[in-house]
Amino acid sequence: MTKVSGFVEWLPEQRIVELRWLDEIRRTFESYGFCSIETPSVEEIEALLAKGETDKEIYIIKRLQGEGDKSDARLGLHYDLTVPLARYVAEHYNDLIFPFKRYQIQRVWRGERPQEGRYREFYQCDIDVINNNTVPLHFDAEMAAIVYEIFKRLGIESFQMHISNRKVLEGYFKGLGIEDTVPVIRIVDKLDKIGHDGVLSQLQGTMNMPLDLAERCLAIGSICTPDLSFREQVRELGVQSDLLEEGLDELAFVMGELSSLPGNMLLADLAIARGFDYYTGTVFEGKLTEFPALGTICSGGRYENLAGSFINRALPGVGISIGLTRLLTKLMAEQKVQVGPKSPTHVLIVFPAAEKRNEAVQTARTLRERGLNVEVYPTPIKQAQQLRYASRKGIPYAWFLPQAEKGHEVKNMTTGEQTAADPATWQFE
Amino acid sequence: MTKVSGFVEWLPEQRIVELRWLDEIRRTFESYGFCSIETPSVEEIEALLAKGETDKEIYIIKRLQGEGDKSDARLGLHYDLTVPLARYVAEHYNDLIFPFKRYQIQRVWRGERPQEGRYREFYQCDIDVINNNTVPLHFDAEMAAIVYEIFKRLGIESFQMHISNRKVLEGYFKGLGIEDTVPVIRIVDKLDKIGHDGVLSQLQGTMNMPLDLAERCLAIGSICTPDLSFREQVRELGVQSDLLEEGLDELAFVMGELSSLPGNMLLADLAIARGFDYYTGTVFEGKLTEFPALGTICSGGRYENLAGSFINRALPGVGISIGLTRLLTKLMAEQKVQVGPKSPTHVLIVFPAAEKRNEAVQTARTLRERGLNVEVYPTPIKQAQQLRYASRKGIPYAWFLPQAEKGHEVKNMTTGEQTAADPATWQFE
Repeated sequence: MTKVSGFVEWLPEQRIVELRWLDEIRRTFESYGFCSIETPSVEEIEALLAKGETDKEIYIIKRLQGEGDKSDARLGLHYDLTVPLARYVAEHYNDLIFPFKRYQIQRVWRGERPQEGRYREFYQCDIDVINNNTVPLHFDAEMAAIVYEIFKRLGIESFQMHISNRKVLEGYFKGLGIEDTVPVIRIVDKLDKIGHDGVLSQLQGTMNMPLDLAERCLAIGSICTPDLSFREQVRELGVQSDLLEEGLDELAFVMGELSSLPGNMLLADLAIARGFDYYTGTVFEGKLTEFPALGTICSGGRYENLAGSFINRALPGVGISIGLTRLLTKLMAEQKVQVGPKSPTHVLIVFPAAEKRNEAVQTARTLRERGLNVEVYPTPIKQAQQLRYASRKGIPYAWFLPQAEKGHEVKNMTTGEQTAADPATWQFE
Repeated sequence: MTKVSGFVEWLPEQRIVELRWLDEIRRTFESYGFCSIETPSVEEIEALLAKGETDKEIYIIKRLQGEGDKSDARLGLHYDLTVPLARYVAEHYNDLIFPFKRYQIQRVWRGERPQEGRYREFYQCDIDVINNNTVPLHFDAEMAAIVYEIFKRLGIESFQMHISNRKVLEGYFKGLGIEDTVPVIRIVDKLDKIGHDGVLSQLQGTMNMPLDLAERCLAIGSICTPDLSFREQVRELGVQSDLLEEGLDELAFVMGELSSLPGNMLLADLAIARGFDYYTGTVFEGKLTEFPALGTICSGGRYENLAGSFINRALPGVGISIGLTRLLTKLMAEQKVQVGPKSPTHVLIVFPAAEKRNEAVQTARTLRERGLNVEVYPTPIKQAQQLRYASRKGIPYAWFLPQAEKGHEVKNMTTGEQTAADPATWQFE
């Protein structure tokens, strides 16, 4: 019996990396004033499907000994954190203070067929701002800025955020006289996966479009600029509509707010629309330029009405979500993220002889009280073996108790340098 | 549609408390050199039942759209972190360094009927030390010391650890000539729930014991001392066996190692045995003296063979587990743990007028770079309303941008005091 396939399990040294990422993500979210919430892993299936049948595979849960027991509601594991957020905001509406800025870092489950890069359980790291009636547009920019800051802190330099606005494609297609814009948006949104020819052939095939119209649809999807010039390029296509103008204005505002970020990390990319129909304005897709095949590593957008299935109130919002597990798996596999020690221990106290145990424990306690992570080797075996344990675990310092003429000494396991040290004052670097 | 019953969901101000507890638990575990692992939420049911039918209600999972699909193994959500640990150690044996000291803080699931104090999903916080062949006995004491330290740091003063050793009861009952000791141990272990009369009547009834034998069984279970005097009290009962002696020696050693802890937090309590049959030596049960009805809030013990169902190696260990969710729910309900702010924000920048947004954002950035959590009020509404938002969220400081003759100022929302401040140097207390 081994780990179930399609589920991720890290070794301790990999988990230390994951913890560092989770801590950095949390710290950045909190630095912008987002509060943490967690929701149960389980929701009623009715709630999970409240937005209509989802294309996500849901896991249902049942009691093993409860066969035939109908008293449990039909329950399922959440497949994202957006549906639970909507239910949470509706349920606790009177206890929350708006604008409600929350982050949520939890595992989600999808009944996927196991395959490379797809997991049946993974961490999502979400932030959203939700308010009554309106949410100022600068929050859209803040979402992108926060995610940029996270990746910068984590040393991921090839991060690139693609931004668009659903109103641009929708307004443009309406301006072209297309009535049912949703399927056209879906096809153009696939540009980076199926390419120009793929988009043209699907528009002609599935949508039964004449070639010249299909080409005009493709033309807007092909606009991708690191600056505000997308606006001029759209104008040159000669299509007019109020919705298109509104979308261009909003996108220009968001791009403008982000102008202090490095130029190469931001793109107005008019092809992107995000699959979910509930996005109504800004949409985001973050990618790593060095791993295009990895696809979207974070995504989000603005929605007019988050919790309409749960409460009769207009609650617009904007949010973004990082799919941590798939990203980290790739970065570790490609050694873009270095795996380090197998333990959080800073100092191993070498245990020289049974009668020295009290002294070892006392030294460990002194160091711990000063914020260090310390273990005492369990048994007084040969010193070389104890040092080998420290070195295999990646413990950076070994500590020697006083003996003969000598006082406490500490050995840097990397350089081999060994120096006198006082447990009450020694500084760990 | 609301939250599913039997599941816990905190408001943001409660979640901040839970996060503080989780952080403190993690920090203490790491300070003793325990590394973090996480295992998937899901295991094969066969693995979950590897120790024989469990009395825990297991939730099985199935794909909603996968009716009739037999390709998925029978899968279930883990009901504790011990079975997954055993599977993990067996599966990654060659990649781990022993003694393997790990902590694991994860949600677990049990298909319980919803009732007060029972949850269907809750956090367990576990530490275990596992080694090949032997684990020194001082680790048993370390487990208790670590948990004591956690509760001390968290200000929970009524914590009391009950310690015993399975060999004491087993050796004593064997010394009395009882062959099948397990059911007798189970009954005596219930002493704190069913009382002296309950134990006597169950021993006479279920076990068909004569009264005088039942009384001798009860006599050892009634021994509970804050010091090493339990040893003398057992001797006075006049029963001899090697196993009993071994148990008393081990228990005395563990109690002795813990003698530096405050006397009132430690009890040698010979009634306790823990329900799980896999414990073979030291057993722990932590309680809060001020809430006896809450029962056991952490528990653990020593086992001879953790992973016998998964690997053909002798892997003894000792561990302890804190059931966080039930404990925190009680402490918050009883206001023993105070709930504070609804947000992690340290400083709210008051947003005076639309044209001041850049200045507000820049000030926020400066403060954030210095490690503070900062938000800018979203819109330039009346100052009083912005301050009301800060005060409702429990944000401790409001920041005012320079205006007229005045420079930056910061207002302490508790005292009302307002003073000049420089974003590059201001110290948050």
